[in-house]
This record gives sequence, structure tokens and C-alpha cells, in this order.
Amino acid sequence: MIVCVCLNCALDVTYDVDRLVPGGSHRVQTVREQAGGKGVNVARVLTRLGAPSIVAGFAGGVTGGAVIRDLDATGIPHRLTPTAAETRRTVAVSATDDTTLFNEPGGPIERHEWSAFLDSFDDLCRDADAVTLSGSLPRGVAPAAYGELTEIAHEHGKPVLLDADGYALLLGIEAAPELITPNHLEVGHLLGSPVATSEDAVSAARTLITLGPRAVVVTRGAEGLTGACRDKVLTVEPGVIVQGNPTGAGDALAAVLAQALADDTTDWPTALREAVAVSAGTVACPVAGDYSSDVAARVRQAARVREH
Amino acid sequence: MIVCVCLNCALDVTYDVDRLVPGGSHRVQTVREQAGGKGVNVARVLTRLGAPSIVAGFAGGVTGGAVIRDLDATGIPHRLTPTAAETRRTVAVSATDDTTLFNEPGGPIERHEWSAFLDSFDDLCRDADAVTLSGSLPRGVAPAAYGELTEIAHEHGKPVLLDADGYALLLGIEAAPELITPNHLEVGHLLGSPVATSEDAVSAARTLITLGPRAVVVTRGAEGLTGACRDKVLTVEPGVIVQGNPTGAGDALAAVLAQALADDTTDWPTALREAVAVSAGTVACPVAGDYSSDVAARVRQAARVREH
Repeated sequence: MIVCVCLNCALDVTYDVDRLVPGGSHRVQTVREQAGGKGVNVARVLTRLGAPSIVAGFAGGVTGGAVIRDLDATGIPHRLTPTAAETRRTVAVSATDDTTLFNEPGGPIERHEWSAFLDSFDDLCRDADAVTLSGSLPRGVAPAAYGELTEIAHEHGKPVLLDADGYALLLGIEAAPELITPNHLEVGHLLGSPVATSEDAVSAARTLITLGPRAVVVTRGAEGLTGACRDKVLTVEPGVIVQGNPTGAGDALAAVLAQALADDTTDWPTALREAVAVSAGTVACPVAGDYSSDVAARVRQAARVREH
Repeated sequence: MIVCVCLNCALDVTYDVDRLVPGGSHRVQTVREQAGGKGVNVARVLTRLGAPSIVAGFAGGVTGGAVIRDLDATGIPHRLTPTAAETRRTVAVSATDDTTLFNEPGGPIERHEWSAFLDSFDDLCRDADAVTLSGSLPRGVAPAAYGELTEIAHEHGKPVLLDADGYALLLGIEAAPELITPNHLEVGHLLGSPVATSEDAVSAARTLITLGPRAVVVTRGAEGLTGACRDKVLTVEPGVIVQGNPTGAGDALAAVLAQALADDTTDWPTALREAVAVSAGTVACPVAGDYSSDVAARVRQAARVREH
């Protein structure tokens, strides 16, 4: 079982409009709602892949209730610590040519709610094969939270994948998670120099690995990824041009690599190739959460793996 | 007492962001919520002006509960018919340079809920001095709804102000409300030719008055308004350049003119001048719902009234 931590769960609301005009007034044609947050999306992919998972996080108020109902309806197991604060909403305005996101901050999480979550997480770690820590932190949760959770998982001997950015990533790295999966923009911010080419990504991955994590995957959108562990650096390119909706590609990648961590018979090049394929299958579908197994199969075949 | 009909009440949610970038991902800095919908906004202005009013409409679900709590907190009386459907939300994304609106459709209103509303409205009309009918119709309410409500008000001998657009306006006009207050864009759509100049507005007002209403006010934003009754056409220009947030200007104007209808000792030129002044006081404040009595006083002094 993979424990998918989602500290900042959300009710994702999608508004369909023809075109987004800043300063304009828009009649929303349809309103859709589903459980969201990066950890929930990782669990959604794992469920689709047939891998047992459970979402761990917080839920509060009416929107928290809506998140729980949607997880139940989708068959995604969860253990969400109750909060006094309403679970946040995100609003995605979906127009013909692009999608614009508005993310409410989430929280505040009270001190006793964080303690209750830690107890619950510690308990879940007993039966875990791996843990994913994904996304932003709600207000009231300390920036070092991912470091603390990594230490708890390690006390149970369980591997950790960390997918975060900024301070949450920086302070998480120090606890030496087994894998971090930042994208090239996040790495650029963290290291203070842009990651534009595959050479930049190789160099950045080598730097990041000195900071604590056992392995680093730097994703570069449609151009693939660079994966580094202590003795090897690989670049994987999809070999196929895949257009579509990049939302969720990072969570699909995290899901596949968490499976590889959980099942330590999978070798590193195979896991990275599979992660690129499943990500591409996610990107190929305009509706977030959908998946094209055809595109994934094509990329699984065409992907090129280079060692540096 | 003025009955402010708001068939499509909303919970107005405001997201503060630095800048709205279509296709971008935005961290919302603050989230604010208040009761909204044009009829609620009319009642809000009347409350501020010290004029007794009551909001009549629908409320359902959790968002409906939030609307009721906000009306209670603000001291705005209401009689809202319960609905199975959740009250809609609107989302206003407030950036430094502009505000972008997303309006959920609202409803559906069930047939028995509409009947219950009609009974309640009929009852409210007994004690009414005037009725305002403002804004869009939720799903499930017939386009001729404003005509039906106008007839009920007239059975009680009460004057009606109608502020709507499209079919709802067209089918409401036929019941001969005492006053309609469309803006120049709505009139342009209705009559099929744009209203760009004050001459266009005079001509459009003269055409509209042949269709049923006793009086017509065509608003033209910062350039003032044109008011027509059967024997007189007036143009009022503010005489001062007022910059700010036009949201709510039309509802402020409707509130002042509804007071004039309720208190039939007020003469037409005085009422129009006052409506332009209070509208300007509303526009002058960047935060929707706020009001500058200084700007209103300046416009009250400077406004020019011309007869055609």
C-alpha cells in the first residue's frame, strides 16, 4: 500500500467558459466538482493502475465533506484528520484554448489537528510500502513538515517520494527522502539559475543529490526528464511529441515512481521510462484525470534513455 | 418598505490576486464572501440610505445558508423561499488593474418552489411601497417571470422598477412596469442598434416607452443617463469625472429611483439627479459595496440636467 500524503486537499471546481477575458463578466456554462490536491491525484492514478493506496491529510467543513464523498464515490481509500477550517477550493476556468487556475490557500491547521495527523500518519506507515509527500502546505503547518514526515516514514523503514517546491522542498530534502521529483522551474528557483537544457538538468540533479535525497528526478515537461542517483545520471526523452493538458502529468509520474520505490525489484531505467510513458498518457487527454493508454504504449516504445 | 426581488441570489466570493494571467496558476491571497445578486445589492444600498427594504428570492443548501447569515449580519431583512438546489456562487477575481467575474447559472427552481415564492411575494406586496425586480433568472424560472411579478404588484397597486436584460426584460416590459433601467449595452442588444451618444439614448428611450413601461432610464456609465416618461425626456450628466469600480452603480441607481417611486412626491428631475449622484458615490470606491458621500455631494452639485 502506498500512503499518499495530501496536506492541502481541495475541492477542485471547474468552470467551463468560451473564452477568458480579463476584466470581463463570464456566464459559467457548467460547474464540475471533484476531490483534488496533488496527493489525491497521485492516489487517483495509483487506483487506475490497480495499485493499493490511501490518501492521508485533512478535511473540514462542507467542502471537506464534498471531498470525502467524491473519494468514496471514486473508490479511493482515505484517512483524513478532521479540521475546524473549511477545506479549501480551487477554481479552474476551462476555456477553449487554455485553463486558468485559482488556488485558495487552505487551513489554518490547528496545533492539535497536526498532532492528530502525525499519530494517524505514524499508524499508516506500519502497513505502507512507500509514502508520497505532494504539494503545498496549508497555513498553520510548519515549512519543515515534509522533513518531519520523512523521518517518521524512515523510522518505519519506508521509502519516501517528495514532490514539493520552495521552502517545503528545501526543508524536506534535509531529511534525505529516497526520491524528489521537482520540475525544471522549481529547480531553477531553488538553485537560482534556470534549467533550460538537458545539460542544465544533469548539472542541477547532481547538485541536488549532494543536499540529501538518495535520488533526484528533474522533469522538463514535453522534453522528458533527468534522473540521478549516487552512481548514475540518466536522461529519458519521450521520442514522440505529445500535446494536451499538462495538469496532472507530475502526479502521474510520482505515482509510477512511488510504485517503483514500493517494489524495489524494478530497475531505475525501466521505472523512468514507464514514468515518462504514463505521464504522456495523462497529458494526451484534455480532461484532467483521463488517460490514453495508446499514447502511453507509443511512448513506452519510442522513449530514448541516455546515460551521462 | 421596498421589496427587492432577487430570484438569482448568490454567494459572492472574491479572490484577491496580483494580476490575472489567462492560462496561469494563481495563488489566491485572500478569500472574501458576502451575499450578492443585484436585488441584494439594491437592498444593501437602501439599508445604507436608511430606507426600509426586504429581499425576496430563493436560498438553498450550504451557500444559501451563508447568504442568509450574511444578510442577518448586515441587518438586511429577507424572506427567501427554500430550494433543493444549492444557491449559486459567483467568483470575482480582483487584480490590481481590473476585476474578472465568473457567474454560476443558479437553480434549478422546482415548480412547487416557484409557487411558494409567488405566495410569499403576493403577501409581501400588501405592505410594499414599491417593488424592484433585478438581475438574471435562475434555471427553471420562466422567461416571463418578471411580467408575472409585475402583474401581482399591480394588483396590489404597487409601482415596479425592472432592471433586467434580454428576454427577461422584453417579457417584463409587456406588463407595463412603472420604470425600467437598462444600460446602453442592454438597450443596444434589445433594439439591435448600438447606443453610443446621448442622442442615441434619447431615441432608444422614446422607442422603449412605446413598448409598455411608464418610464425608461437608459444609463450610460460615466456619461450619465437619459430618462424618459410619456411627456418628457431628460438627460443628466454628472458634470464631474468619476473613476473607480462601476460594479454596483446600476443597483445604487435602482435603489434611489425605487425610493422615488415609493415616495411619489419626489419630482422626476430631482430623482434622476440624485440617482446619478449616489451612483457616482458608489463608483468612486474601489471596494464593491463601499460609498463616498463626498463624491456623491460633489456630483449632486455639479450634475447638469437637460430637457429634450
